[in-house]
Amino acid sequence: MEAENEIRSKRYAADISSIREAQVRINSFIHKTPVLTSETLNSLAGRGLFFKCECFQKGISTDHVSKISGNHAAALSLAAKLRGIPAYIVIPENAPRCKVENVIRYGGQVIWSRATMQSREDIATRVLQETGAVLLHPYNDGRIISGQGTVSLELLEQAPQIDTIMVPISGGGLISGVALAAKSINPSIRVFAAEPKGANDAAQSKNAGRIITLPETNTIADGLRASLGDLTWPVVRDLVDDIIVVEDKEIIEAMKLCYEILKVAVEPSGAIGLAAVLSDSFKKNPAWKNCRNVGIVLSGGNVDLGVLWDSLGK
Amino acid sequence: MEAENEIRSKRYAADISSIREAQVRINSFIHKTPVLTSETLNSLAGRGLFFKCECFQKGISTDHVSKISGNHAAALSLAAKLRGIPAYIVIPENAPRCKVENVIRYGGQVIWSRATMQSREDIATRVLQETGAVLLHPYNDGRIISGQGTVSLELLEQAPQIDTIMVPISGGGLISGVALAAKSINPSIRVFAAEPKGANDAAQSKNAGRIITLPETNTIADGLRASLGDLTWPVVRDLVDDIIVVEDKEIIEAMKLCYEILKVAVEPSGAIGLAAVLSDSFKKNPAWKNCRNVGIVLSGGNVDLGVLWDSLGK
Repeated sequence: MEAENEIRSKRYAADISSIREAQVRINSFIHKTPVLTSETLNSLAGRGLFFKCECFQKGISTDHVSKISGNHAAALSLAAKLRGIPAYIVIPENAPRCKVENVIRYGGQVIWSRATMQSREDIATRVLQETGAVLLHPYNDGRIISGQGTVSLELLEQAPQIDTIMVPISGGGLISGVALAAKSINPSIRVFAAEPKGANDAAQSKNAGRIITLPETNTIADGLRASLGDLTWPVVRDLVDDIIVVEDKEIIEAMKLCYEILKVAVEPSGAIGLAAVLSDSFKKNPAWKNCRNVGIVLSGGNVDLGVLWDSLGK
Repeated sequence: MEAENEIRSKRYAADISSIREAQVRINSFIHKTPVLTSETLNSLAGRGLFFKCECFQKGISTDHVSKISGNHAAALSLAAKLRGIPAYIVIPENAPRCKVENVIRYGGQVIWSRATMQSREDIATRVLQETGAVLLHPYNDGRIISGQGTVSLELLEQAPQIDTIMVPISGGGLISGVALAAKSINPSIRVFAAEPKGANDAAQSKNAGRIITLPETNTIADGLRASLGDLTWPVVRDLVDDIIVVEDKEIIEAMKLCYEILKVAVEPSGAIGLAAVLSDSFKKNPAWKNCRNVGIVLSGGNVDLGVLWDSLGK
């Protein structure tokens, strides 16, 4: 209770109460995703690993009513469909084809923008004016953070031995929810963010003590290119123990292990947690030596596999 | 009890008792694999689908002490390792690289043969003489069939609404175990085999009323090329309601859906159950119209994904 009160007194955008309320609200709409383990991967990591397969979530690794910014659009489309209301989705022209297909599959109305943030905002503003719609930010929103925090509630119930949680970081919504819930339940749990080197704004922000945004990003993990928001940054600053930065080649290697050992089809952004746990900067850091049982959130499975199907069709 | 007695009186190589005994014996060594669902795939199939993810099993979709003939080798290697005894694995030179790697990963000793059945048998005989080892057939063995039958016990406990089960067929071990257990528990359950057109010996055998073997097979589903054995054939003949034959292109399409919708990385042989459920010959057959809730066994995830990693590495 003390930990809960301490976190509550800081007045972040969400807390354990809002997260538990979100869980009750979304319970009948979601899958309770399984936790997978592999002795082969435990050996590689030198620790126990518990893979929380949010990539199996409805809306494709999304809901808990919209879990990952890159997959927010599909989840929102599904949620709107269930409510019988329209969802307008502004999508930049360079978005992966499969993510656009998921939006269409769930009944979202696609509105194209150019790839710049400015174009996306201009077009979103116009759509709001024309339709009277409400803007739902993919991560900088207490309701989104609360929904995403339910991942911790499930994970710690399914694998209570977990002492560490590794989460991909992009805009910071998922990790904020996960950290707020986990540290309220058990203050000694460590929460780490996994971030690609080519979009390491969160690591730079932690170092600088203020939000740093990058002029451009360059990583295969297309779901992890967003910048921290003013609601997620305070949680990342205060409650995330460290940010583990990995190279794209480490992400691809981890993705390969997910497919070939775990048999789970994740996207690069989703596999980054495993990449971080296997990285030298995590494995060889004496401070993290006693992280014995690590929960890894596998998010997102929206990778374009066209090259694979082409090769099999031959 | 009547159904149990009827099946028992036929004296197949396994029965519900041997299957329940196997479950107790292997319980502490295996994963209880999850059952996944997808509303998108339900819509495509026009029925409720329940995917039993045996591809997540230890030994890579194998154990229940050795589940799929193609993956039998890896499971056996793991089982032997756990017992501290050697496993000698005779592997034809055309086996997929990833399956060989799994054998090595689990400590099996690889002994190469040529691709012919004759060469495999000659070399196996020599190894038995030289080492005093015992031959474990991948499917034509009551112990293997009993272990594989535990899939039904788990599946019907996890999704009791299931009225139909769809299983890949190769040598017939998995489907024999599944059918014996499921029909003992609930005689009205339908059990179907999914078979590739290029290796349709089981469908031909059912039609002919005797075991037919093919001079050669030609299918992408490398795990489904074996022929029925004298212990599996009577079960397939008596208890399998129908054999659904699908083309390789349907298998690839189903595999794609497994990756892109379910986010599960199966091999072609593992995806064939979904291909069968989505095929016209199953969907449009009025006799199967009332198959409302179909359990699909997803087995095996050993596909060579080299082309995918090459493309991502660019």
